[in-house]
Amino acid sequence: MKLANLVGERFKERPSDCLIDSHALMVRGGYIKYVANGIYSSFAPLKRIVMKIEQIIREEMDKIDGQEVSFPVVLPASLWEESGRYDSVGGELLRFSDRNGGKYVLGMTHEEAAVHLVREYAQSYTKYPFMIYQIQTKFRDEARSRGGLIRVREFTMKDAYSFHTSQADLEDYYDKCHRAYERIFKRVGLPQVVSVASDSGMMGGNLSHEFMLLNPVGEDSIVICKSCNYRVNMDAAENIVNNTKDEVSNPLTLVHTPNINTIDDVCSFFNTTPDKTCKAVVYQKESDNKPVVLFIRGDYEVNEAKLKNILGCDIYPAEINNEHGLSAGFIGAYKLDTDCEVLFDRSLENTNNLICGANKVDHHYTGFDISRDLGKVDYIDAAKVTGNGTCPYCKNNTLEISRGIEVGNIFQLGTRYTEAMNMTYLDENGNRKYPVMGCYGIGIGRLAAAVCEAHHDEYGPIWPMPIAPWQVHLCAVRADDHNIRELADNIYNQLVDKSIEVIYDDRSVSAGVMFSDADLLGVPIRVIISPRNLKENCCEIVSRDKKLSLKVNLNECINQIINLVSRKLTE
Amino acid sequence: MKLANLVGERFKERPSDCLIDSHALMVRGGYIKYVANGIYSSFAPLKRIVMKIEQIIREEMDKIDGQEVSFPVVLPASLWEESGRYDSVGGELLRFSDRNGGKYVLGMTHEEAAVHLVREYAQSYTKYPFMIYQIQTKFRDEARSRGGLIRVREFTMKDAYSFHTSQADLEDYYDKCHRAYERIFKRVGLPQVVSVASDSGMMGGNLSHEFMLLNPVGEDSIVICKSCNYRVNMDAAENIVNNTKDEVSNPLTLVHTPNINTIDDVCSFFNTTPDKTCKAVVYQKESDNKPVVLFIRGDYEVNEAKLKNILGCDIYPAEINNEHGLSAGFIGAYKLDTDCEVLFDRSLENTNNLICGANKVDHHYTGFDISRDLGKVDYIDAAKVTGNGTCPYCKNNTLEISRGIEVGNIFQLGTRYTEAMNMTYLDENGNRKYPVMGCYGIGIGRLAAAVCEAHHDEYGPIWPMPIAPWQVHLCAVRADDHNIRELADNIYNQLVDKSIEVIYDDRSVSAGVMFSDADLLGVPIRVIISPRNLKENCCEIVSRDKKLSLKVNLNECINQIINLVSRKLTE
Repeated sequence: MKLANLVGERFKERPSDCLIDSHALMVRGGYIKYVANGIYSSFAPLKRIVMKIEQIIREEMDKIDGQEVSFPVVLPASLWEESGRYDSVGGELLRFSDRNGGKYVLGMTHEEAAVHLVREYAQSYTKYPFMIYQIQTKFRDEARSRGGLIRVREFTMKDAYSFHTSQADLEDYYDKCHRAYERIFKRVGLPQVVSVASDSGMMGGNLSHEFMLLNPVGEDSIVICKSCNYRVNMDAAENIVNNTKDEVSNPLTLVHTPNINTIDDVCSFFNTTPDKTCKAVVYQKESDNKPVVLFIRGDYEVNEAKLKNILGCDIYPAEINNEHGLSAGFIGAYKLDTDCEVLFDRSLENTNNLICGANKVDHHYTGFDISRDLGKVDYIDAAKVTGNGTCPYCKNNTLEISRGIEVGNIFQLGTRYTEAMNMTYLDENGNRKYPVMGCYGIGIGRLAAAVCEAHHDEYGPIWPMPIAPWQVHLCAVRADDHNIRELADNIYNQLVDKSIEVIYDDRSVSAGVMFSDADLLGVPIRVIISPRNLKENCCEIVSRDKKLSLKVNLNECINQIINLVSRKLTE
Repeated sequence: MKLANLVGERFKERPSDCLIDSHALMVRGGYIKYVANGIYSSFAPLKRIVMKIEQIIREEMDKIDGQEVSFPVVLPASLWEESGRYDSVGGELLRFSDRNGGKYVLGMTHEEAAVHLVREYAQSYTKYPFMIYQIQTKFRDEARSRGGLIRVREFTMKDAYSFHTSQADLEDYYDKCHRAYERIFKRVGLPQVVSVASDSGMMGGNLSHEFMLLNPVGEDSIVICKSCNYRVNMDAAENIVNNTKDEVSNPLTLVHTPNINTIDDVCSFFNTTPDKTCKAVVYQKESDNKPVVLFIRGDYEVNEAKLKNILGCDIYPAEINNEHGLSAGFIGAYKLDTDCEVLFDRSLENTNNLICGANKVDHHYTGFDISRDLGKVDYIDAAKVTGNGTCPYCKNNTLEISRGIEVGNIFQLGTRYTEAMNMTYLDENGNRKYPVMGCYGIGIGRLAAAVCEAHHDEYGPIWPMPIAPWQVHLCAVRADDHNIRELADNIYNQLVDKSIEVIYDDRSVSAGVMFSDADLLGVPIRVIISPRNLKENCCEIVSRDKKLSLKVNLNECINQIINLVSRKLTE
């Protein structure tokens, strides 16, 4: 098509509200338009990219025997009540009523709908295993949408659900799907995506993996071991701590510490380091607002996701008042007289000579020895892993923390949903059983944004050929010249005849405007017809990534372009 | 794929809640599953049909220079407030709040979103004309969903929006789109779809057409002239009445008519026919609940859509009490003392010697002559056209009323939305103007159901090749026989290698079960491998519509099948 007809604006200035490059480039290049918080419309270039990504996903899902189906966007609350998630999921599940007062939700994931679709069909073991998937609009009422398409409220997702008669069969399929995901990310131009073990969160189930594009703008923290293959989401990462006690345990000593109520203050006051302190962190439970006190070594931070999983409910930072015997800034594990739940992070195991609060305003103890002073303690693992931490697999202190964009996830759900929704089948022996489920998601828009994050320069995206909005960007510089236009029209028509997708710029604008627009559209191959080239009876072929720049004789240019396109489709 | 793996149930019994055939067959054939009122999930066969329909629509929209974009499902109320439709549209617009109390709606049509997407882009006349379209899930909170996919609440629609700098340019494009729609309906197997002029309803604008499949299960009444090409929706059909007065106008005479308060009663009492009576019909306006009295000849019915358009607001049948001087059952046009709005349908023009109510319980007048007794009267056109009515074009009394399923519609919207939402452009002379819009919709699911209504027998749908879920249904009768299986596997693999879409039934079930399942899936070409055929070294090829049944030598069968498929793709 002609660029002159392409609906959408392109401009130079980076919008001030765009914090990450993919967001800025998608706005500047006429890919997306903001409609409301976390809600965007897409112009044709993004729609074309998205359809290509969807087709790649479809092919790979079909290859692992997936059947494409379609679930509703609007789901009756009753289905979510059956699974228990109508109540357990928070404000991100958008609930509303129809004109007759019927309760509904906007689908943010479709486990319930999947079970509903197949529970009459799959009543005999002979129907298993099978996988169904859809590519559909979803809505998640995110508290904080951000980064353009990276975290939105309305999004298109491929979600797949597999059903099995044994955990072993699920695991086989899970591996198959893992490999299909690797192929998908490779085909869309992100071979560098890695899978990391993850926290299953609100999905329930046992084992899950996230597929991550390691990138500084990512929202997730990922723990990677430089020595072995261990990779895990920070929220699911085990924190290994190897404490050794000082040879001599000093006696507990009460010290007057006026206004010393942060770890920094304590370290200055006592001239020591945070690892020699015992910190108290207080949360309240969403369920009953009761405070929970967690003691942790002063140099560690709490991982709230891990703590939530241990407590089995949502938490929020507490407001500390005097009600529960807690003396803000001076809470200590020794002689703490409280009715709160009290927990100890494993970073305190095997420590002595720590400084801790004395449960009395303006006082701390020195010489705290947890086993001597408290006796037997049960430790939990609720701390964030740190750089150079110990790998739980290879035991080397070679853990590294990276940022990642989550572009996909896979979950072994087990019988979480089939039990709740009473989906059963008869096995070979006539026994009624619950099928085991897996589910597998990819956010399409976020994947497009992730590709843009991974492949761009300051001038625009550099789309990989398999998902590029067009394959060739034809620039006719000085198309007002009769010869230029005739030649460019001719090349355009020949390429289109050969089923090459061409965006054709024949506008009467300067070469500068033409090329900066082309940079923003990020089409992998650019063909330039200009008076100077015409004089030499050739055209220029340059690649968007600047790695290639050729002058090609006009007789050979069509073949060259076609070869380049097909090479880049498979490279 | 193998039928044994196809998710979804097929069964013989017609579900009792299915009033129309397409609904029953789609449930019985494992195409859809009911989720909630007007909300369905789709199994793989329907999803495959729908994707083929979408691709046909996409190709035809691209041919008329459409650009595929994507608008959100969830739209901020502010956009609908800008156009005025947040208040003017009734309960079918689903309104709700997000977690922060922001007001939103579920998109049921996207004029507002389309204007929002392009109003910054299209500020110069040089950008026009252009058309953008999407294929997207929509939600309309229908009071009465019915007929399976014929009238649902959640549906997928192709909606297109064109923008122009003149009415003439819009009209050109409107015609182009009209022809594209004809091609689409022809390609999906419904060449018999006709366009009819329609009422623009809540869309606003001037001219519009609906594309109708004439079919007894349709919800719409369509007026068609047998003599000329006139076709119009009942709601937009002009009613022509040719009254001639009796030569002698009898004097008004008050008659005691105890308990005679319906037109039937009146006719019996006076031994006359309804066309000799003047009927009063009373509505109340949605806006202020005020009654409106409409007088109409006794043999005509009111068309409420036409009356609504005249009144400019919604109406509902009135409860008549004595408040406004209305005497229920005896309301008459002569000496009616009321503060209500009073209207006269044109069916009363040029009448005399009518019987009408006397505004007094148990009394009627005879000898009512409207022009003599009321003087000058303004008539409106609010009656339903009747069979054998007069065509407004050719003037013959050859109108016929048919039922139709609306499968598409096109609207000339004018500046209804661009004015309301302040979208403007600068014309050649630097004057700021409002662009003129058209919009063009096709409901995908309803179209699939309409094809099924038009093409089925008692055993199942008969899908046209271009949208069939598969192209070939391969039945291996007695696949437990080694030779049968080897042959069938071989044919399956050869066809798949040639990119033929094959559903392969190799189950150990009777031929009867196999064929009734095949009938329900409605695949146009069936290939049967059986011991008997094998003995003759041939296979059977039969078409689902029963028009074709061949025995073909095994050496030729692959070519024959491929030829048949490609012939049926284009016929």
